[in-house]
Amino acid sequence: MATVPLIAEEAAPAEVKAVYDDIKSRRGVDRINNFWKALANDPANLARFWEDMQRVMGKGALDPLVKELIYVAVSITNNCEYCIHSHTAAARQRGLTDEQYREFLAVIGLAARANALVTAMKVPVDQQYLV
Amino acid sequence: MATVPLIAEEAAPAEVKAVYDDIKSRRGVDRINNFWKALANDPANLARFWEDMQRVMGKGALDPLVKELIYVAVSITNNCEYCIHSHTAAARQRGLTDEQYREFLAVIGLAARANALVTAMKVPVDQQYLV
Amino acid sequence: MATVPLIAEEAAPAEVKAVYDDIKSRRGVDRINNFWKALANDPANLARFWEDMQRVMGKGALDPLVKELIYVAVSITNNCEYCIHSHTAAARQRGLTDEQYREFLAVIGLAARANALVTAMKVPVDQQYLV
Amino acid sequence: MATVPLIAEEAAPAEVKAVYDDIKSRRGVDRINNFWKALANDPANLARFWEDMQRVMGKGALDPLVKELIYVAVSITNNCEYCIHSHTAAARQRGLTDEQYREFLAVIGLAARANALVTAMKVPVDQQYLV
Amino acid sequence: MATVPLIAEEAAPAEVKAVYDDIKSRRGVDRINNFWKALANDPANLARFWEDMQRVMGKGALDPLVKELIYVAVSITNNCEYCIHSHTAAARQRGLTDEQYREFLAVIGLAARANALVTAMKVPVDQQYLV
Amino acid sequence: MATVPLIAEEAAPAEVKAVYDDIKSRRGVDRINNFWKALANDPANLARFWEDMQRVMGKGALDPLVKELIYVAVSITNNCEYCIHSHTAAARQRGLTDEQYREFLAVIGLAARANALVTAMKVPVDQQYLV
Repeated sequence: MATVPLIAEEAAPAEVKAVYDDIKSRRGVDRINNFWKALANDPANLARFWEDMQRVMGKGALDPLVKELIYVAVSITNNCEYCIHSHTAAARQRGLTDEQYREFLAVIGLAARANALVTAMKVPVDQQYLV
Repeated sequence: MATVPLIAEEAAPAEVKAVYDDIKSRRGVDRINNFWKALANDPANLARFWEDMQRVMGKGALDPLVKELIYVAVSITNNCEYCIHSHTAAARQRGLTDEQYREFLAVIGLAARANALVTAMKVPVDQQYLV
Repeated sequence: MATVPLIAEEAAPAEVKAVYDDIKSRRGVDRINNFWKALANDPANLARFWEDMQRVMGKGALDPLVKELIYVAVSITNNCEYCIHSHTAAARQRGLTDEQYREFLAVIGLAARANALVTAMKVPVDQQYLV
Repeated sequence: MATVPLIAEEAAPAEVKAVYDDIKSRRGVDRINNFWKALANDPANLARFWEDMQRVMGKGALDPLVKELIYVAVSITNNCEYCIHSHTAAARQRGLTDEQYREFLAVIGLAARANALVTAMKVPVDQQYLV
Repeated sequence: MATVPLIAEEAAPAEVKAVYDDIKSRRGVDRINNFWKALANDPANLARFWEDMQRVMGKGALDPLVKELIYVAVSITNNCEYCIHSHTAAARQRGLTDEQYREFLAVIGLAARANALVTAMKVPVDQQYLV
Repeated sequence: MATVPLIAEEAAPAEVKAVYDDIKSRRGVDRINNFWKALANDPANLARFWEDMQRVMGKGALDPLVKELIYVAVSITNNCEYCIHSHTAAARQRGLTDEQYREFLAVIGLAARANALVTAMKVPVDQQYLV
């Protein structure tokens, strides 16, 4: 149960419907994810978030798959279950192989371990990074 | 000030010295970072961590630069100052351009925002991810 | 499934029952939430926590609704599902409107994004805040 | 040391300068905080973030002081030193009294404690919040 | 639903089967937990993690029960539901009493509260810890 | 720089002075840590927190050293620099040996790694923990 109603496509006001249609057309899908249906309680924010997502996650100097992996890495560390599921799936759609995913997980585990050890021991930042 | 002494190269026991030498030779550097000097208080763990780092962060199905970016993404979200500094620098050494870094930061910001919104509204995971 | 039994009202020892009765009477409710039933495994802690909650969350220089929003903001960032549900509901009971909740969520998203960007770039604190 | 150069006012390209001027004029200040100088490495993102901040943090159904307190609550929980300093200062500028700040801190401490206890015991969400 | 298949015992390749058998024999159990079945998608990592767990969690200068409590404390703070359940159960198997668990929870709550307050007020580290 | 003044011993009002004196006498120290000097801006909260700390951290079913280690484990995971420093020092005063600290750190690293992997793969909780 969300803390807000999920706005169904057939119940969406015109402003929301326009974003839903754009999502479906650009992504080539025929249904809207719960994330957007929750955001749609604030139509202005929905439109802005969708714009940001288009702008940020598309092809640029970094590959869209790499962007998805960075997104998932943040979501794992923030423990956002919804985001882990939806963006791991998005990464697979963008071509993530099983072997790449295994390597991704190994990096996630190593970084989490190193982060904890460094924080525990309060290792001072090396001089070279501070000048 | 760390919670443990940083083991200087000249004071390192043979077991630690061997790892230090391997780090310097494989990385082509002439000094050892504080992270390793702190870890060196537990020589067995130092050796094992260095082994893991070699195994995990090297070239595989994912590019080493991509692995560094995933590592930094975790470190940012865990707020590990040392790790952010050292692995952002490592990413630059592996060729990260300013434009790529800008895109990386935009993804970090977008994911953090989405994570917070999804968590706030307790958006239920879509059925398609659960089967 | 909790890691402790939930202490039902009819099974509660006198010390716990007294707190349960106080909760029901002060809040004008006829049932006890699971949070208190879990805490009740440590009757002394239950009593103390209930005292603290009364003392901290009541009307003072800050409005009780504002206090609930601060409480929810912490709970979202800590990703405490139970706390998000129960205190978002408490905020609504204290008068939170849909428009206020939309603005609340927008602040949550903005702060999470800014936190991530600032941490990623290790932006130094401006001198003015340090003197 | 930030991971990016801080773009000084006198070195800012026109696109950045325009945002800097708008910040100074709307806030009635004569200098630009490091946050904006770091963001300015990505002029498009700088402009968008400033727009978002105007849109989100201004007067609405919630008071700007309340919004600052929510922002600080998120920043504390994310442990963003820069954000805690700058937005606690912003809250004071918007009228936060010492007594209000004391109450704010008491709520922060209570919520963090409750979050930890609930998470530790895996307290199940009450049925009433799930329907 | 996990993001990877759980590798059942009867479907496990020899390399994985060997680890499963070792887990069952050393722990005196007759089934394998989901954690290992998920890790088993990367047989090399599975073997290494199991080795690390043996090496780290066994009897040493710290008692295995104490190690489990430290493990649970980290898992609570990271909000890892699976880990909280499995390692609270492991602590009980190692003799954790109800009274010890009550005290454990009280420490968890106190530390979380203190962490939040200290972070909120940016309390400077006392000189004595920095030399 | 803290966000509040640190209340020096000689400037403390009677209510605060009484707590300071109790801290010094019970701990056998001759100075007050910054944590208490910051908390002292809210004398009622200071008194209550000191009471809680006495009640929670003293000898009980768990040893005070074990309680300190649990406290540090939470503080590391929350990345509370002040708390890591002060409670690692407190653990040493209570007899923590170098070997115990090495084992403690190994557990911290292992738990952080396992937490990240489990969260990444969304490993479902085994049935046995849910009944």
